[in-house]
Amino acid sequence: MWYNRDVITILDFSREELEEVFETADDMLKYSHSRLDILKGKVMALAFFEPSTRTRLSFETAMIRLGGDVIGFSEVSTTSIAKGETLADTIRMLDSYADIIVIRHSIEGAAKFAAEIAESPVINAGDGTRHHPTQAMIDLYTIRRNFEDIDGLTIGVLGDLKYGRAATSFIYGVSLYNIKKLYLISPPLLSTRKEVRDHLKLRGIAFEEVERLDDVIEELDVLYVTRIQRERFPDPAEYEKVRGSYRVTPESLKKVKRDLIILHPLPRVDELHHEVDRTKHAKYFEQARYGVPVRMALLKLILAGDRV
Amino acid sequence: MWYNRDVITILDFSREELEEVFETADDMLKYSHSRLDILKGKVMALAFFEPSTRTRLSFETAMIRLGGDVIGFSEVSTTSIAKGETLADTIRMLDSYADIIVIRHSIEGAAKFAAEIAESPVINAGDGTRHHPTQAMIDLYTIRRNFEDIDGLTIGVLGDLKYGRAATSFIYGVSLYNIKKLYLISPPLLSTRKEVRDHLKLRGIAFEEVERLDDVIEELDVLYVTRIQRERFPDPAEYEKVRGSYRVTPESLKKVKRDLIILHPLPRVDELHHEVDRTKHAKYFEQARYGVPVRMALLKLILAGDRV
Amino acid sequence: MWYNRDVITILDFSREELEEVFETADDMLKYSHSRLDILKGKVMALAFFEPSTRTRLSFETAMIRLGGDVIGFSEVSTTSIAKGETLADTIRMLDSYADIIVIRHSIEGAAKFAAEIAESPVINAGDGTRHHPTQAMIDLYTIRRNFEDIDGLTIGVLGDLKYGRAATSFIYGVSLYNIKKLYLISPPLLSTRKEVRDHLKLRGIAFEEVERLDDVIEELDVLYVTRIQRERFPDPAEYEKVRGSYRVTPESLKKVKRDLIILHPLPRVDELHHEVDRTKHAKYFEQARYGVPVRMALLKLILAGDRV
Repeated sequence: MWYNRDVITILDFSREELEEVFETADDMLKYSHSRLDILKGKVMALAFFEPSTRTRLSFETAMIRLGGDVIGFSEVSTTSIAKGETLADTIRMLDSYADIIVIRHSIEGAAKFAAEIAESPVINAGDGTRHHPTQAMIDLYTIRRNFEDIDGLTIGVLGDLKYGRAATSFIYGVSLYNIKKLYLISPPLLSTRKEVRDHLKLRGIAFEEVERLDDVIEELDVLYVTRIQRERFPDPAEYEKVRGSYRVTPESLKKVKRDLIILHPLPRVDELHHEVDRTKHAKYFEQARYGVPVRMALLKLILAGDRV
Repeated sequence: MWYNRDVITILDFSREELEEVFETADDMLKYSHSRLDILKGKVMALAFFEPSTRTRLSFETAMIRLGGDVIGFSEVSTTSIAKGETLADTIRMLDSYADIIVIRHSIEGAAKFAAEIAESPVINAGDGTRHHPTQAMIDLYTIRRNFEDIDGLTIGVLGDLKYGRAATSFIYGVSLYNIKKLYLISPPLLSTRKEVRDHLKLRGIAFEEVERLDDVIEELDVLYVTRIQRERFPDPAEYEKVRGSYRVTPESLKKVKRDLIILHPLPRVDELHHEVDRTKHAKYFEQARYGVPVRMALLKLILAGDRV
Repeated sequence: MWYNRDVITILDFSREELEEVFETADDMLKYSHSRLDILKGKVMALAFFEPSTRTRLSFETAMIRLGGDVIGFSEVSTTSIAKGETLADTIRMLDSYADIIVIRHSIEGAAKFAAEIAESPVINAGDGTRHHPTQAMIDLYTIRRNFEDIDGLTIGVLGDLKYGRAATSFIYGVSLYNIKKLYLISPPLLSTRKEVRDHLKLRGIAFEEVERLDDVIEELDVLYVTRIQRERFPDPAEYEKVRGSYRVTPESLKKVKRDLIILHPLPRVDELHHEVDRTKHAKYFEQARYGVPVRMALLKLILAGDRV
């Protein structure tokens, strides 16, 4: 099902297909500090038009640990894009050198466009404000490792739900499961876009938009935290006013469920207090670690299929 | 003939030597999506003092596919050159780490200078305004793949023939063959330098300088297009006036030979219309693809000789 | 003794431990142009918060030649650090991907801090103004290759002894040996910090601070040259006045010992005249070459222990 396939949005996949990734990732966990030879002779091209550390380095590590190699660029200033080359021509070039292309771009739809041009499979490593499917897979995988089942959970997503692509991808990912309730927690200025809410309705997901974390935190099994950028607010004073409601501190956690897990796609700034790290709820470093095995699983399934 | 040799200009090589590269490239085409072990244990250092995507990534891919490894830098801001180190000291350093050095530099003669200092072989990946020998090899190889013979063809080179190093390298490369006629098509401001014309005379190449593509396009077997940078013109209005004469569009191609092939070293901006891509004349993406096998051939011949 | 250990300062190691590195480096010299499989499956993460060429590329080459792989960043602008991520979170990320972390940072103590956070071993590739332990190992190794013994030598260190981390690391390294005399040669403005002098006293090293190279050069067996940055002087005229006293030229070398060796961590600007390169005293290019075998030795000892 996965062989030679593009990965553009999390919604392109069924629960069964995601389960195949997760089971392969369970397998890959054993090898996340070795070097296999499964992808020997395969070259991955990174086309990172936007900066990234985690996503880029975990893709590189995943490819290396499977025996493959990596080329590409992680900023546009030293590339021919700076000379005015079109995205199409850049992708055609990478396509003729490499066996798979991993793209990050600020513009919505860039990954899909690249996939239409390239003969090699294309993986979206984040484009525009909505899609970052491999991050969503890592997020869901982390939940699956901590709970028996994603179905039946109450999940809160906190932060910038309008522009944050990790948050939106996660919401789309969650919509594939029969969760109990989804809380969308954000200031009104940064609330979920209408199309995302429409999608949730269509899927029959019980969701509610709220403005304060405090009002719902007791109910949550999973709290997914994302950053709110001060720059989003036309008036900085406005930001200072609401800021406290979107910070997770040891105090916020006084009345939570025993098994609550806190996720964050990272990097974080001050929306998630460092003292939370020491609580048993903090699962974001575990989540970061899964970046390698989940991406190994994807690369293996796409480039080698069921071959071992 | 090739073992341990520097590659500084295309004129350092005979037709027979180029033919050896081309035959090896034919061979390498079979492996341009695998990983051989021919260069296992060899390290290539990239010394890119000027930005590049295609040249850099295809050299990296070529080295990787032969089993070698790559180190180096692709911009000077994060290097000790930014601290004032001389080119000689930088080359000495790379020479002590690596087995081959690939250099790109804005200054004419930088590659030759590097070759004099380094014990390892040095490949010129473009320096100054005249030399880019591996690009010329790729260009000639593309012609050779499309026609039985380079001898006897009528070839036009369009664009900035004064400052464009790919164009000049190609002209030098073509001068090794018994072509029928060479048209140098450019605005007077950007016409071929006297030394290049003198070289063509010495070689007995029938060439003619013309100002308009339209006047000669019907005769051409090969049209090599390069970019004209607006910045070359002291008066932008002057540029706007001539611009149309140096753009290749579907209209330009109305009266061309059936087998005309169009080449371009890429990246292109608007000198080569995207609708030309769909015509059978467009061979520039094929040409870009040959970047890997031709560079594989060179690296193999220089670092491993006839060893397989 | 070395297996899985951090390398933070040269003072963390005994002479015996350094000797183990040097003997392993002797061994590695044989392989400094091959690829071993000792570290196959190991990934090294470079966390270079400050630019570097030599240190970075020789670490990369060392890892590659041992069969390992490299990920990481060599500037912060394209990383999540630019988004405000803490050093701790960045290190945690790299720790979960890689098997060893090599860090360079402008802030004193950054490497030690990283080592406290990471489970993987951490190597300090230069932090703050005092520590660059792997450079000191290379320096000492170069002396050891040129003299039978480091004990008993008279050593001069020239240049910026206040802010230059290579100079200070070298002084600390030298303090582990029973040298005859140590001359600290610098303008008063850039003389050795009190804590370093206190350390030398504690170790019972005979040292003397002098202002002019000429006064002591006849006595030296080893002259370690470092750069003086003009920017250190509040008044540029002041710099111009003293400058000549801290430049090594063929004239400076008229009355030196026959076996004097001159070292420099490189890059150099004009403190070490290019004509000195041709004298038999110049050992700085040899020293640069040892960057690979010494770092291979360290990586081997830390990641593979005594395993061969």
